[in-house]
Parts: sequence; C-alpha cells; structure tokens
Amino acid sequence: MAQGQETGYERVPTLLTDLYQFTMAYAYWRSGRHNEPAVFELFFRDNPFGGGFSLFSGMHDCLLFLRSFRFTDEDVEYLRSVLPPATDPAFFLFLRELDCSGVTLQSVPEGTVVFARVPLMEVSGPLAVVQLLETSLLCLVNYASLVCSNAARFRLAAGSRRKLLEMGLRRAQGPDGGLTASKYTYVGGFDMTSNVQAGFLFGIPVAGTMAHSYVTSFSSLEEVWPQTLVAANSDHDNIDLISLTKGWLGRVCELLGAEPGKIREGELAAFLSYAIAYPHNFLPVIDSYSVTCINAISVVFLLCPYSSGLLNFCAVALSLCELDYSPLGVRLDSGDLCSQSVEVRHVFRLCSEQFSIPAFQSLVIVGTNNISEYSMAELNKKENEIDVVGVGTHLVTCTRQPSLGCVYKLVEVRGSPRMKFSEDPEKSTVPGRKAVYRMLDTEGHPFLDLLCLCEEPAPKACVAVRCHPVVGNKTCQSITPAQVSCLRLDVYTKGQITHPLCSPAETREKVQSSIQTLHPRHKRLQKPDSYVVAVSEKLQNLIAEIRKGSSNNSNFLLAN
Amino acid sequence: MAQGQETGYERVPTLLTDLYQFTMAYAYWRSGRHNEPAVFELFFRDNPFGGGFSLFSGMHDCLLFLRSFRFTDEDVEYLRSVLPPATDPAFFLFLRELDCSGVTLQSVPEGTVVFARVPLMEVSGPLAVVQLLETSLLCLVNYASLVCSNAARFRLAAGSRRKLLEMGLRRAQGPDGGLTASKYTYVGGFDMTSNVQAGFLFGIPVAGTMAHSYVTSFSSLEEVWPQTLVAANSDHDNIDLISLTKGWLGRVCELLGAEPGKIREGELAAFLSYAIAYPHNFLPVIDSYSVTCINAISVVFLLCPYSSGLLNFCAVALSLCELDYSPLGVRLDSGDLCSQSVEVRHVFRLCSEQFSIPAFQSLVIVGTNNISEYSMAELNKKENEIDVVGVGTHLVTCTRQPSLGCVYKLVEVRGSPRMKFSEDPEKSTVPGRKAVYRMLDTEGHPFLDLLCLCEEPAPKACVAVRCHPVVGNKTCQSITPAQVSCLRLDVYTKGQITHPLCSPAETREKVQSSIQTLHPRHKRLQKPDSYVVAVSEKLQNLIAEIRKGSSNNSNFLLAN
Repeated sequence: MAQGQETGYERVPTLLTDLYQFTMAYAYWRSGRHNEPAVFELFFRDNPFGGGFSLFSGMHDCLLFLRSFRFTDEDVEYLRSVLPPATDPAFFLFLRELDCSGVTLQSVPEGTVVFARVPLMEVSGPLAVVQLLETSLLCLVNYASLVCSNAARFRLAAGSRRKLLEMGLRRAQGPDGGLTASKYTYVGGFDMTSNVQAGFLFGIPVAGTMAHSYVTSFSSLEEVWPQTLVAANSDHDNIDLISLTKGWLGRVCELLGAEPGKIREGELAAFLSYAIAYPHNFLPVIDSYSVTCINAISVVFLLCPYSSGLLNFCAVALSLCELDYSPLGVRLDSGDLCSQSVEVRHVFRLCSEQFSIPAFQSLVIVGTNNISEYSMAELNKKENEIDVVGVGTHLVTCTRQPSLGCVYKLVEVRGSPRMKFSEDPEKSTVPGRKAVYRMLDTEGHPFLDLLCLCEEPAPKACVAVRCHPVVGNKTCQSITPAQVSCLRLDVYTKGQITHPLCSPAETREKVQSSIQTLHPRHKRLQKPDSYVVAVSEKLQNLIAEIRKGSSNNSNFLLAN
Repeated sequence: MAQGQETGYERVPTLLTDLYQFTMAYAYWRSGRHNEPAVFELFFRDNPFGGGFSLFSGMHDCLLFLRSFRFTDEDVEYLRSVLPPATDPAFFLFLRELDCSGVTLQSVPEGTVVFARVPLMEVSGPLAVVQLLETSLLCLVNYASLVCSNAARFRLAAGSRRKLLEMGLRRAQGPDGGLTASKYTYVGGFDMTSNVQAGFLFGIPVAGTMAHSYVTSFSSLEEVWPQTLVAANSDHDNIDLISLTKGWLGRVCELLGAEPGKIREGELAAFLSYAIAYPHNFLPVIDSYSVTCINAISVVFLLCPYSSGLLNFCAVALSLCELDYSPLGVRLDSGDLCSQSVEVRHVFRLCSEQFSIPAFQSLVIVGTNNISEYSMAELNKKENEIDVVGVGTHLVTCTRQPSLGCVYKLVEVRGSPRMKFSEDPEKSTVPGRKAVYRMLDTEGHPFLDLLCLCEEPAPKACVAVRCHPVVGNKTCQSITPAQVSCLRLDVYTKGQITHPLCSPAETREKVQSSIQTLHPRHKRLQKPDSYVVAVSEKLQNLIAEIRKGSSNNSNFLLAN
C-alpha cells in the first residue's frame, strides 16, 4: 500500500494561494524588507459546532508543503502575466529561487485537543516567505481540523462500542475534498471508510457491500448463476442454493407468521447471487423494497411487520449457515433505524433459537440513513440494536458549521511585536512571540492554556501564576497547576522536518488519548463549560503598552 | 496559460469510489451479468437553498473522467488486497481490461438551468461498468452544481452592476476543494478569483492587493524605501513621495476637519511602500486600525468620523494623482460596509471637488466582510457605494445547504424498466429509459419539464400534451407549449467525447443566458413558484403497471 505521506500525492501546488500574497511579497521585496525576520501565528476564534474543544489536524500536510515549496519556471511565467506590468523583472528571479530553508515552524502536535484563540502554529522566517505561506497553511489546517473535530464529536455521540463508517465521498467538495474528508474523519475516530482511494493512500480500512441498484437490477431467480455453492471447508458436491433457500424461506415465513406472497423474487435473486459470489461476506441492504408485509392473522406480529428484505436475508443466511458459512449481517438504509433494528434483532434471535443456529446471535446490523450528530446521539438514548453506523453528508460537509475560520496573523517583525486593533475586541490580535503552556489539574485534566512571552520563564507545577483570560471576564486571576506541559513543538527548522510524521492510524490513537484527558465538563457535546485561555501578566502589560503607545503616534507629521 | 480541460490535471483516480461498487461489480461478473445493458440516471430531489432552480455543472469533468477511466496494475493489486479472499482472480484481469468504450452518456449541457427530479444524465452501458461509475460521477456533479448554483444566487442578489470576487480558498475542503470552488463560482457568475492556481489552470481573472498583515508589518516611515517615485509618463527627477504625501495629509485633514493626531504612521508607511511598488495599482485595505478619529470640534463630521486608513489613503492617492498615476480605490474589511462606503464615497467627492482631481470620482470601493447571500441582497436595499464585493466562506462552503444530494438510480436492465419502491413516495424512482423535454411559453420562458419514454414521439409546439406532475398535485393536466426543446444531448458515445468541451468562460456565459430565460417567478431567491416537472401519460401508466405487477410476484415460490 502506498503511504500518502511519502508519495507526494498531497503536494499542494505553490500557486494555490491568493494573489495578494504575491503583490505583498513584491512590495516587501521592492522596499528591501523581504528578508526581515517575521512571525505569524495561526489560530481560530471559536470552537466549532457549539462545542468546548476542537482537534488540531493538517500539520503533517503543512510540513510536506513547506518541504516542497518551490516555484517552477511555468509558475513564475504565469505570475509574470498576472502581476502588474510595472513589476521589476528581478522579482521573478527572486521567486524562482525561493524555498522554505529559512522558515521555522513551531506547532501543536497533530491530533491534539485544542481550544479557540490558542496560537496553534508559529511560523517564523523571512517576511516575504512567511507571508506567501498564509493561504496554503490555512487551507491545509482549516478543513482537516474541522472535519476531524466533527468526526470526534460523532465518535463521542456514538459511544465507543459502535463501529463508525465514513461514506461521504459523493457529497464532498469534489474528488480531493472527499479524500481529505476520508483521511481526517478516520483520524477523528471513525473506524472505516467506503473510499477506496483513501484506503489505498492512507491505509484506512475500507468497507461496503451493495447498493439498492444491485438489488433492483435483479428481477427473477433465473438471473442467479451459478446456482450452486460448495459447503465451506468441504470438497463435496455443489449444493443447489436456490432450492435450499426456498426451503428455508418457507420455514422462516412459518416461524414468523409472515405471508410469502409479498416476497420479492428479484431481491431474493440479488441476495442469492451475492451470497454465491461472497459466501463469507454476506451483508445485503434489506430495504430496497420497503413495502412491509403485514400479517393480519398473527396478532403478535401486527405491530412488527416483516419486510421482504428481512425474510429473504434470513432464508439465504440460514442456507449459508447450513453450508458452514457465517453470514455477516444486514444494512438498513431508510425509516426509523432504531425500531427497525430492534425488530430485526428479534427475528435473528427467533431464528437462532428455533433453528439452533448460534451464528444468528452475532449478526451485525448496519444503519445508514442521513445520520447527523443529533441522530447519532439519539442512538444512545433510544432502544436499538445497531452495531455499525455509516455517515456521509453531515459528516463530510460539517452541515452544522462548514468552516472553522482559522486565521493567520502577524505578531512580530524584526523583533518588535505587532498587533491588529479592532473595535470588535474579539478581532484584535495578541502581539509578540509566545510560548504556550497547558495547565493540568491534580487529576490530569487540562484546565487552562497560558500564553506567555517566549522570554518569560516557564510556569512551574504547584506554583501559583497570575494571568488574564483572553475573552469574557478578563480580570486577573491566580491559578496553580498540578502539572504544566509545553503545548507546541519545533516541527520544521530551517528547511528540515524535525518531527516524525505519524501515520493516520497513529494520529487517530493520539486523538483518542488526547480527548480522554479532557474533563467531562469540557467534553460535553452540548453546552460545555468554557475552557479558559489566558495571557501572562507580562503579555497583558505588553498589550496595554501597545494600546497606549498607539493612541498618539503621529509625531512623524511634525518631523521633517 | 494551461487549459485545465486538457492538462489532465483533473484526472480523478479510478479508485476514488466506494468499495461496494467493486463488490457489486464482482457479483455481477460472477453471475455473468456484467455485460448486460443497463441504464442509470443522475438527478437531485430538491432545488438547493430554498430556491426554484439549480445550475448543472461538472459534466465536462465527468467526460474527462470517462475518457481516462482505467485501472492500473497498482490499483488492481490494492483491490486484490481489500476484496474478500474468495474473489476469483480472473475478476482482476477483467478489471485491468476495463474502460468506458461501451458507455454512452446523454446529458443536460454544462451550465444549464435545471430543476429537481429531472434526470440530468443518463448513463448506459455494461451493467458492471456503469455501476462502477456511480460515486465518481456523483462526486464530480454534486459540489460543482451546488457551488455554481450558490454563485448564481449571489450574482442575482448582487445585481449585474457589481463585480464579484471569490476568495474562499482558505475555507474550502482542502486544496482541491478550493480549486473546484474557484472554477465553479466563476462559472456561476463571479468575475474574479483570488486563487492564483485557478487563474493558471482555468483562465479565470485573478485579483487581490494586500492583507492587514502587510499594513501592520510597518511601524515607521523609515521603513519606506525607496522613498521616491518618478512621475508617470515622464523621464524627470525622482519625487520624494513621503514629503509630498505629508503635504497632502495636512490638506486632507484640514478639508475634513480631521485630527492628524490619530493617524497611524505604520499604516501610512505601508500605503506609501505599496504605492511606490505599484503606483498604477494602488488599492489598500483601509481598516487595519479601525479606531476612528472623531473630531469633536467639527459638528458636521461628528457622525461620520474618519479612520486613519481613509485619511492615509487620500493623502497617498492624491500624491499619486499629482504624479499622473491613477489610484484604483480602497478595500473595507470590517463593520457596516454600506454606511462606511457611503462615507468613503463622500470623502472621495469632497477631495475631487476641493483639489480638482477628477480621478477621485471613479475610485473603486471593495467590500469584504463575511458576506452571505443575505447580506449581498441587503446591498441592493440599503444605500451604499460598494463596487466590488469579495465573498469567501459562505460562497465556497455553501453554508446554507452544504450538499446538493444528487443520486444515481438504476432505471433499466436488459431493456426492462427498473424501479425502487419506497414508503416515502419522494424516494421512489421513475422507471424506464426516457427523453426529457423542456416546454416554453409564448414569451420563451420554460414552464414545465416533461419526462417521456424514449420511444414516445416528441411533444410538438402548439399541440396539447397530457401529463402528470411528479410531485405535489399529481392529477393529470393538459398543457400546450409554444416551443419544445430536447433537454439532453449525446455527449459521450462508445468511448468518445461527442460534445465540444467549453472553457469555463464560455460556460459562464451559457449560465447567464440560461438564467435569463427563467420567468421571474421561478428566479426569485425567496419563495419562488414551484417549477413543474411531469411525466407523460405513457410513463405514468408504466409506473402504475409496475406498482401493480409488484404487488404479487411471489409465484416463484410455488414453482420448482
């Protein structure tokens, strides 16, 4: 299997950025400022989906992007055609030589639980280069983190018992939107994907059996060919599976008091053909003809009518069991999945008992029907027997909030802090180069992320620190962490990746252990407690100083 | 410039599909049904965004996909590793030889106005192959059509006068989600994109000048270098632009009664540097320091305070005008864009009159601040002076409805119609191979799309036709079209593209002319009248026949 990290598949074109990055780079270059050391920070302003946390993803893709960042001759020629004619030709030579050998990236590790307003990445290097990186880094982090966070919420809503299948390719933003979705929903806690290319590139387990079209493509038992199957682990004769199944169908209808008159021949043919093709992997979709078969005679079953699909499944699966195969289960794709799954499980148990078939006790029920986080959470409240849930649209498009809104802000140039002011205090930036610490309580739960100036000594465990929350009640408070960890690592230094690239499976494990450290009050999907992000006293003083200094800085008008 | 259509850039990996397509293909192959002629239809069930229409896009990408559809040895080896071990090895040889030489595609032309429940594409060919195409075709059409429709709605909301700039790359579903968005929002009616790669690949005009980070990266006039500019169309001496601008700044403040004390030196330095780099293309973002400068003395201006950015812009732009350059305008990126734009325009007019500078009458005002379709529509209701609107997040993520929900349904196998039943009538399919006609009224507005069986004679202009709407009131009605057009064309026949591939710019024009044919009652963005999609009497009879026939088809149980 190809490993996406190394195939270069994910190479992002260096031109895939906003035009203004080039016009700004030119203006920097023209004024001789392009090599001034500059520092940008990447962060988002609100936790998505009304939740209390997010997951940070996409960093590995950023590393690969930085490593391969180069403009080709063709790129540069195109830029020459779209930048203003006044652009000095020497600028294009400069672009042609550009790479990230002067860039350093400090980042929160991939797959870590993070919070709004914490600078997740610090990108430092020559002003023109780090400016040029903006759009690509945002593009790589924004959706990856969003869909990973969404997947983690589905995982929490589903509980750990159920298996989760991602199947959103057809509803994603084009082919590679779908590929990104498959990768990062797996990282966020899904178990499988339907996307074969994602399996190929990232080693994600792939799953799937049949669509309704397969079932409706059959109309009669004459289409079943071959009609025979050899019993598993046997060199014996071919068994006529159609006759065998007809016999079982009669017994199943009798057991359930179902009326054979409503059974769809085409559906039975489809199931038989599939079972003959894949006797070890029989898991059909059983509601292509969701017209139910109410048996008016048996009062017991009046309220739980059996569909043609369920009866056909039982008959074929019992035949397979008789031939020593183990059918896998069924998929439900419409209606009330909870109540249907209970009814289906009931039938499986009846069959198991009546016909002494233990394998029918462990059949899997897959549910797929426009599942949202809300309906996933319902599965934990209502009685149901669903073992595997397939999720598409709401997962990959992040219906509830389709953008994370990461931003990339300048915080320092030539060693001097920079700040964007705004009348909306939420949009002002926190100036200066920082260190970011995570404070843990005595039970190991993180309770506060602290932004300090990087020259400040690190806070110590069991020593009180004074700090100011960055949003809400901003009055100074004193906190005493039981443990302190440094949240960011050096991951790219002077052109080299200095942090091991993990596989999606490894990152997926980190995601789950990172989520487990969270206190339940922050992990709650609805109305979680706010996690505090704060700045140190020194940083707070710097902000105040800059605000004050800025209020009257027009002395330059008097000079000259 | 590279042309995306021919570079193969858009080649979709053949493995980028759902696993069940392969398990189904195997089951077809195993039962010898893989070459049976089959027909699938692609359609969506509801017009997006609560609107009355949609735009069909992505068909050209489908054609390129069909043309290059092949499995490599590497693909097949991977499939061998994930399909059940029981899979007959000969199936992989079959896959290795597969292509679309037996496939025919009939499609609505790219960029056409379409309606819910109309089969937009008919894909016919060998059962196993046309089944395998499902996910890729859906993936290529779904988002392209959705985001194109979204762009068309923004275009309608904006009116034709305003220029629209797409700038959503950083908020899209990863790198190529962003590229798809740029392409199809342009097709849907946007004028420009910020995405350079989209310009490179698709020939879309690109635009952009500077971000806030550029402005905040400057702190003093000492950073401006060079400090001089030669007048346009002149070989004369270098002029000291800083001194010149300081003079203009004094005059502007005097004219407006503004207090120079609030002017940001760094911002002025940024504007000067940019103007020196691009004297012909001066269009700065003027609200990086959105702290306004209220002049308590001048009562007139109490209610329209001037920001540092506006004053700095006027001073630099007036200097440029003095040197015979034409500044372009300003960008506003926060707050109430409408009222700000009115204020900014007012200042431009004052300057123009006071200083006799005609160029100040035609300065452009660009607005970019989390624009939604709703806020775009507001621009047509509230007084404002915005000439260009930049849209990102809400455009590319289609916040209001991030998925179109296209489906791909089997309608015929071996010449025999197929239908999926469902208790939810909306989810039942319309069986059989069809022709699709669009009925126009005497004014040339389409008013009804009619699905007929393909063997029926085409309806004729001015001849009454009886038909049944597919949703809502399904009673038979008689309609008389003034004109009839055939909605779908043969675009791919037996392995060959038989329809010319248009450039995005050509499709963009088709979109606008297609929208223009719509009656205002269908074009309305809010609460439009429903457009009628109907089936012919013959097709209605076929549906009834199949429903009836299906109600008792279990005679097979008695046979044998």
